[in-house]
Amino acid sequence: MRVYLDNNATTMVDPKVFEVMEPFFVKSYGNPNSLHEFGSESHPALKRAMDQLYTGLNAKDADDVVVTSCATESINWVIKGIYFDHILNGEKDHIITSEVEHPAVIATCKFLETLGVKVTYLPVNEKGVVEINTLKDFITDKTALVSIMWANNETGMLFPIKEMAKISHENGALFHTDGVQAVGKIPVDVQDVDIDFMSFSAHKFHGPKGVGGLYIKDSQPLTSLLHGGEHMGGRRSGTLNVPGIVGMGMAMEIAIENLDFEKNTVRRLRDKLEDEILKIDGMLVVGDRDERTPNTILVSVKGIEGEAMLWDLNKHGIAASTGSACASEDLESNPVMEAIGAEADLAHTALRLSLSRFTTEEEIDYAVLVLRKAVIRLRSISSTFAYKPDWHESKL
Amino acid sequence: MRVYLDNNATTMVDPKVFEVMEPFFVKSYGNPNSLHEFGSESHPALKRAMDQLYTGLNAKDADDVVVTSCATESINWVIKGIYFDHILNGEKDHIITSEVEHPAVIATCKFLETLGVKVTYLPVNEKGVVEINTLKDFITDKTALVSIMWANNETGMLFPIKEMAKISHENGALFHTDGVQAVGKIPVDVQDVDIDFMSFSAHKFHGPKGVGGLYIKDSQPLTSLLHGGEHMGGRRSGTLNVPGIVGMGMAMEIAIENLDFEKNTVRRLRDKLEDEILKIDGMLVVGDRDERTPNTILVSVKGIEGEAMLWDLNKHGIAASTGSACASEDLESNPVMEAIGAEADLAHTALRLSLSRFTTEEEIDYAVLVLRKAVIRLRSISSTFAYKPDWHESKL
Repeated sequence: MRVYLDNNATTMVDPKVFEVMEPFFVKSYGNPNSLHEFGSESHPALKRAMDQLYTGLNAKDADDVVVTSCATESINWVIKGIYFDHILNGEKDHIITSEVEHPAVIATCKFLETLGVKVTYLPVNEKGVVEINTLKDFITDKTALVSIMWANNETGMLFPIKEMAKISHENGALFHTDGVQAVGKIPVDVQDVDIDFMSFSAHKFHGPKGVGGLYIKDSQPLTSLLHGGEHMGGRRSGTLNVPGIVGMGMAMEIAIENLDFEKNTVRRLRDKLEDEILKIDGMLVVGDRDERTPNTILVSVKGIEGEAMLWDLNKHGIAASTGSACASEDLESNPVMEAIGAEADLAHTALRLSLSRFTTEEEIDYAVLVLRKAVIRLRSISSTFAYKPDWHESKL
Repeated sequence: MRVYLDNNATTMVDPKVFEVMEPFFVKSYGNPNSLHEFGSESHPALKRAMDQLYTGLNAKDADDVVVTSCATESINWVIKGIYFDHILNGEKDHIITSEVEHPAVIATCKFLETLGVKVTYLPVNEKGVVEINTLKDFITDKTALVSIMWANNETGMLFPIKEMAKISHENGALFHTDGVQAVGKIPVDVQDVDIDFMSFSAHKFHGPKGVGGLYIKDSQPLTSLLHGGEHMGGRRSGTLNVPGIVGMGMAMEIAIENLDFEKNTVRRLRDKLEDEILKIDGMLVVGDRDERTPNTILVSVKGIEGEAMLWDLNKHGIAASTGSACASEDLESNPVMEAIGAEADLAHTALRLSLSRFTTEEEIDYAVLVLRKAVIRLRSISSTFAYKPDWHESKL
């Protein structure tokens, strides 16, 4: 049996999404910017996709939803755009983000630091969340941008972005959220939270890889990251990735239709898996269930290196993660575990399990069995547990 | 009959390319950076694709070929990277490009001008080509980068980039070429021409849209455009677009296999079309055939607006262009025609016809018929021609 529990890293393209993409590779391949039928025959599908994106995010007509190649591009665009628009001219000098953002945010901010920008990386509490008062403590009238994720990729914890956007605006700062792990998992209403910018990526909600987007409130100005032709209203140049855009639109529509399913069925399976995990001794799950995306568990498995656990699970067909796939090739400790101040011996023991609407009850039952056996096996060779009688199999 | 003669705008995905991409949407969808089988099962295909790219460009192992989302991204990356690496620190202050570059180059340079960078836009000769001596006239020891296209998107004219790279290096400047219109049409050997950087885009050689690349000689440093995780050796972050990369690799391999076919068969069909066009009075083709990519014709049709011609051809199933699709939605005169100094009444009369290896003899015969009739029809309502007896049908 193969069980995919790494949906926060990437997701399967929904077959219904692939179906609408497929005509635009070999058959209707024209460049939509061309003045002929080969080009214009993709317009209805592109228009539909853009409608699906606007509807899915509840964006207003006056807003821009600009298609990019991925959330990493969107994030680089916002942060560097703000640098060119509000910092380079001396108007502002400061950006605020958090310690637990995606590497795209952290690395872009580190780059801007080399250009003289002041960056504050807000710490998180024991649940891995930035508290509102922490933001209040650090924001000033020189803060150009506050960039805080909507949902954490590793813990699934939701951040109070509506309140944070309000505080940012009260202090004259713009607010960007990395919405990558929120879209498709929880209701995302850009007007309700009143943010300026939101990055998202299709492949996290059963759309294709290589396409994402940036929501821009009221189509406000933002220096382009990709200068060139007049694509996307001149905001993001490059020949339109027609199948990618069409696929992302459909993926958004289907994801929105399935939000109740996420909230109920996916959540129930996640909770079942979590209940079973917590029956094993020495398991610490980060954050409260109601405060997380419904599909995610980040658990510290005491005494077992995360990578060892991954290998054991993988041998039995189960795909999981120690944290962000964007950093998973370097075997460092989980940055969220570090940020929440987990003891050093816990920081390397993180295991992330992330479900999707395609996860079945049978798969969860199988995963529970494999996981329990893996814990026994690995603790039997763990220096922390090998000689402790109370960690014998009977305890599991 | 539908005839696609706009292959410089974009191309059909080769069915053999789509075949190798297809498994990576719904079936093998893992994130290649993940430490499990869902992720690693794409590694052999990714490795093969990277080998196909290195082989196709004749890149050395010590070079980098970095996958991006399109040539526009690659071009922005190079030009802005050079700004951060060699201009912002005061070492250099100058960039050289040409008047007839793709909008991605021109717009990025215009942006850098707003940051105080000096940019020289070299003029072209009557064939639309930058002459070597023109570069020599403008390059100085403060020139950080020379960016000149390999083949022009509108005329197909080839530029002397090997000599220009040499001159650049002799003056302490780096050399980038926009290779978008060269790859797949003529032999591209990055070692032979000894350039530092080359941008390219899969969808111009029968690969998918939304994926391109940047060749970087000797893996030399270049500040990233997309900061983030450790993808692509830390040079270009963002979850790998697995089907896109696999498709681009296969498209490159097939394109290289077909270079002789381009040189002989596509060239023969192009020449046949051009011969027939030139039998009509008042037709001016830009540049010598031997100095162009084998698939391209840019012709000025005296007395007929390019857009009128496009609409007439389109009504009869033929797709063509007035120039770059990246600028074709705004009905401006063709920038190459302007740059080569064509009289004002010619600048709006450009028609670009670009073939591919999928173009058939039957299609060319049909296109000739349609084109001749379109010229008659449109000249009959042209203020330049309507009352001139010598432009009657008998002359065509």
